[in-house]
Amino acid sequence: MTQAVRHDSMRARNLGLVLSEVRRSGPVTRAALAEITGLTKTTVSKMVGDLIEAGMVTETGTLRDGERGRPGTAVSLSGERVAALGLEINVDYLSACVVDLTLTVRLRYTQAVDNRVASPVETLARLQKLIHRAVDEARSAGLVIAGSTLAVPGPVNGGLLHSAPNLGWHDVRVGDLLVPDGGLPGVEVENEANLAALGELWFGTGHGDFLHVSGEIGIGAGLVVGGALFRGARGLAGELGHVVVSPDGPACRCGSRGCLEQYAGQEALLRAAGLPAPAPRTAPDATAPDLTASGLTVSDGATPDGATPDGAAPDGAAAISGAPVAPGAPVAPGGVAELVARLRDGDGPALEACARAGRALGIALTSATHLLDPGTIVLGGVFAPLFPWISGPVRDAMTERLTAMRHAVPEITVSRLGADAATLGAAGQVIHRVIADPGLHLAAARTAPAPR
Amino acid sequence: MTQAVRHDSMRARNLGLVLSEVRRSGPVTRAALAEITGLTKTTVSKMVGDLIEAGMVTETGTLRDGERGRPGTAVSLSGERVAALGLEINVDYLSACVVDLTLTVRLRYTQAVDNRVASPVETLARLQKLIHRAVDEARSAGLVIAGSTLAVPGPVNGGLLHSAPNLGWHDVRVGDLLVPDGGLPGVEVENEANLAALGELWFGTGHGDFLHVSGEIGIGAGLVVGGALFRGARGLAGELGHVVVSPDGPACRCGSRGCLEQYAGQEALLRAAGLPAPAPRTAPDATAPDLTASGLTVSDGATPDGATPDGAAPDGAAAISGAPVAPGAPVAPGGVAELVARLRDGDGPALEACARAGRALGIALTSATHLLDPGTIVLGGVFAPLFPWISGPVRDAMTERLTAMRHAVPEITVSRLGADAATLGAAGQVIHRVIADPGLHLAAARTAPAPR
Ligand SMILES: [Zn+2]
Ligand SMILES: [Zn+2]
Repeated sequence: MTQAVRHDSMRARNLGLVLSEVRRSGPVTRAALAEITGLTKTTVSKMVGDLIEAGMVTETGTLRDGERGRPGTAVSLSGERVAALGLEINVDYLSACVVDLTLTVRLRYTQAVDNRVASPVETLARLQKLIHRAVDEARSAGLVIAGSTLAVPGPVNGGLLHSAPNLGWHDVRVGDLLVPDGGLPGVEVENEANLAALGELWFGTGHGDFLHVSGEIGIGAGLVVGGALFRGARGLAGELGHVVVSPDGPACRCGSRGCLEQYAGQEALLRAAGLPAPAPRTAPDATAPDLTASGLTVSDGATPDGATPDGAAPDGAAAISGAPVAPGAPVAPGGVAELVARLRDGDGPALEACARAGRALGIALTSATHLLDPGTIVLGGVFAPLFPWISGPVRDAMTERLTAMRHAVPEITVSRLGADAATLGAAGQVIHRVIADPGLHLAAARTAPAPR
Repeated sequence: MTQAVRHDSMRARNLGLVLSEVRRSGPVTRAALAEITGLTKTTVSKMVGDLIEAGMVTETGTLRDGERGRPGTAVSLSGERVAALGLEINVDYLSACVVDLTLTVRLRYTQAVDNRVASPVETLARLQKLIHRAVDEARSAGLVIAGSTLAVPGPVNGGLLHSAPNLGWHDVRVGDLLVPDGGLPGVEVENEANLAALGELWFGTGHGDFLHVSGEIGIGAGLVVGGALFRGARGLAGELGHVVVSPDGPACRCGSRGCLEQYAGQEALLRAAGLPAPAPRTAPDATAPDLTASGLTVSDGATPDGATPDGAAPDGAAAISGAPVAPGAPVAPGGVAELVARLRDGDGPALEACARAGRALGIALTSATHLLDPGTIVLGGVFAPLFPWISGPVRDAMTERLTAMRHAVPEITVSRLGADAATLGAAGQVIHRVIADPGLHLAAARTAPAPR
């Protein structure tokens, strides 16, 4: 790295330092910012001016600098201009949300669709419509979308979705298949298990150290340590579903045997409870358009062609704000709703299926605790509605195996966000990157149209 | 945090920034440092002056600032004054090393002792002697010991060694039992598996992303991601030895069943090969002095009461410097040496024992790869001398289970440092902390005695 390049990167870092400090300490004066960051007052004033012009920061009254200082104008983070788009493709829904720079949720759409019986192109076309709708709505509120992240149910490395067995997608560059909206930056793609953990961090209970278990048909996990997501060397960490529970157990889709998913995944659970489990799609090629495919079904709560806006106030202002975003207990999707109903009725096979799945989950989480040392364990996805029945067996298995060596078994808690975690985490990730490096977004935010 | 406190912490951070930049870019002029860091020239000059006075930085000639700048005096990192002490208690040896600020190894002592048959107090008294000897030697070379870290074979949290089953130690504050040498800061205690991974990072092959497997009687692991050790929420991550290989397998010392150690630990390996495996001590209380305990044995290569200095030049200057520190193949301790001899002879039970242990290690590393996503896997400890026989079965098991989902199985390599990794990592950790926050050490380093 040359000194000039490093000097530029230091300037970008300092702009991020100033904006981060405004977020942490605001309202705060320019003089106090200079003192805290060690930068000159001239540098700080120039940077704050640029941030105000970009609508990222706003003046919010008068404050004294420290205890003895002169009064000065204070600045705070502003949610008026810069926002992020969070997107998700999952097995039985699509969703989009817009979150502003202050992490206030400005709008949120959810569309219930069984994506297993839709072709990839149908699914992506439907997501594209959701994107247009969310971006239009955000723009009429005077927001500039700084970036977007898409949550997908499978491991992603460098934009490539390796495999989403529940969707039957393999080696797809999903981001490249979405037509960028006018002026909208490319869509970044990320594993939903990672983003759900970040959603739990930023919009959920707010612990800084936890393992979030994202149970769907597949089982993923996202580890947050000291407030940051642990990704491993290539971003493929957290694949809890393929931790070996029993080395000679049933064959798994991944090519191994006895993986956790074979005992505690949604299919295994439903089957063990005597409920019909939908078979996974066998892989169609998501890169080859198949617009003639039919079989489209739209689940409850959505009109066949439209999204269900569950936020968006008429003027585009914050429709939902603050935590908790999702009130009440997480909703159980499809067959899991039926399983929950049977569990409530005390159905024997259903209870035994949960006990068996819980034991397997406890064994896999024992290995995970030894390797990852999580602070607490948050059960999300389908394990959230099943929590009353599955958490006991999980805790028992872990207590039996971990107590002597660890003294304390990690606390097992339930996710409050349920299925919303990944979409919110997707938008939150963009916002955190903007705050860390606002320089990249100054120009776009300055030229934003005024709110309509 | 008040603004004054934050300002102080910002000043400390900036001093660390300057010293880190000197290490990365040196020789470098003060003007270039100011440009790179964004700090004022006055601030940088004051900080460099303080660092020179403390012997952490030295002037090393004249350089131009950038391409067109005026010539200025360049400064570089100096190893003349500040150093760190690395210590290790393991099953069959004690060791100490002194490493200076430039990560040059200045001296290293190793004492072969079977610590399983020595009382804890005997072991600690012997270590104390090693410390005095190393500190004396370092001081006569004009070095100031900025800190020391002790590697122990078990999980440590907040200075408390939870358990070292190989030594029979449980819940011991080892650092508190060592009498601090005059002016020497307290000894920090850390899991040897973590420190061995850091040793491999700083003194070994130099990869930034790997899982270092530290196979002894117990099996530990240390994960390095992006050049930093992953510790988990409480520093207890990496306990590979208790990952569940088979849920109903043999009972383990940890209270669980079917842990990796029961298949691939040194005892299991030796027993499977038909060799005598030393039984572990049953826990004596390390906090209760037991000076009457006898049974002291001293292994080859050490006088009964003294250490074997294998470095230390008469004038205290660098005895061993640069990588690789340990030439040639790692040495196999005790029973493992006999196992290696039998493997070389093609002994059937020995080969079968390695194959079985390798399969189990491959299953545990499959789970670890799914959860941790390591770049490469480095086999150290007893797995280093056994590498030619055990790495094949490990690779086969992982290939079978991981290929379909991950495309590539992590590369499996052998540690070059062998048993030296943890002691070097212990000293290196102190040095890295000094460079990140040199302010804490300025005063002590300024008042150092001149070399004798
Ligand atoms: Zn699997
Ligand atoms: Zn165990």
